[in-house]
Amino acid sequence: MNIGNYTLEEFLERIRSFHGSTAPGVIIGGIMVDTLKKNLPPGEFFDVICESAHCLPDAVQVLTPCTTGNGWLKLIDTGRFAMTFFNKYTGEGARISLDHSKLSPFPEIRNWYLRLKDKHDQDLNALIREIVRAGSSIYTLAPVQVKPEHITAHKKDKRRIVICPSCNEAFPETPSGLCDACGGKGPYV
Amino acid sequence: MNIGNYTLEEFLERIRSFHGSTAPGVIIGGIMVDTLKKNLPPGEFFDVICESAHCLPDAVQVLTPCTTGNGWLKLIDTGRFAMTFFNKYTGEGARISLDHSKLSPFPEIRNWYLRLKDKHDQDLNALIREIVRAGSSIYTLAPVQVKPEHITAHKKDKRRIVICPSCNEAFPETPSGLCDACGGKGPYV
Repeated sequence: MNIGNYTLEEFLERIRSFHGSTAPGVIIGGIMVDTLKKNLPPGEFFDVICESAHCLPDAVQVLTPCTTGNGWLKLIDTGRFAMTFFNKYTGEGARISLDHSKLSPFPEIRNWYLRLKDKHDQDLNALIREIVRAGSSIYTLAPVQVKPEHITAHKKDKRRIVICPSCNEAFPETPSGLCDACGGKGPYV
Repeated sequence: MNIGNYTLEEFLERIRSFHGSTAPGVIIGGIMVDTLKKNLPPGEFFDVICESAHCLPDAVQVLTPCTTGNGWLKLIDTGRFAMTFFNKYTGEGARISLDHSKLSPFPEIRNWYLRLKDKHDQDLNALIREIVRAGSSIYTLAPVQVKPEHITAHKKDKRRIVICPSCNEAFPETPSGLCDACGGKGPYV
């Protein structure tokens, strides 16, 4: 099995280096990315939505040009293990999810996905072998239309940079005139 | 100038490969990471908060073990160009921000940061030279205490995985019983 331009072994080494471990979720994410790529028209520009913060963003960042910091990868956490590639101008996209209803032939994946076994009781190698053996059979693909507020490619951020009167730091202006930290969303005590 | 274990040229090549371009914000982010590392006790485990989605997460992901998908990098978008390294168990941290009040000797950085010039009128090479010349002189460091809700290292996610009665997908259980997408936060029409 190949994932992106990598052999499985090369991909495992890449995610060990980037993600810190050969997490099953990143391998699943890699297969999701590959499956989506085969189901999109070639040569267009796509943005990515990950619906889970667990593992999936790292598969996307290792295998595509989309990263958290360049704006092409958005994390919209719905709790579902799914991702979407969408045309960055029209919002038309393809979504893939790991489908619990297709897991009965794959008990290791099912135990892992539905948290039926403690992590320490799982056999990681057996789980990885099942993920590879399952190939693309355990996913569901569906067309989606992304909401306008998440289609940002043609919307240049024209907000002025202003200085917050409370913290005296620069930020893109808000209706309240305060930065979001001083407006109550700050992460510090 | 070195950034992390890279020479400047090597770092520029790394961010060209990962981020897609030698964006000034990622170079600034790299200097922020280096400056924070020098101001923390060695050998401890730190999580990272980025306060801006622009560029900073990619500097962190290139230079540290913390990524969006492994849970050690959190994006808490306050609009401010700042990041924090914090002890993942106690929440004690050090925050660094690009300080607009220190930019008068560096007009290219000031024009870029405060969006005083159109991007196309900026001289990228001159801007990068100024960022290098400024070194760590344009930042402000401060100790911070991260709010308990963002200190997650010792909190294992013990939520059961359940099936959403609306979309029939698996997700970590919520008080409403619906996944967050069916609860109204879904990104699709």
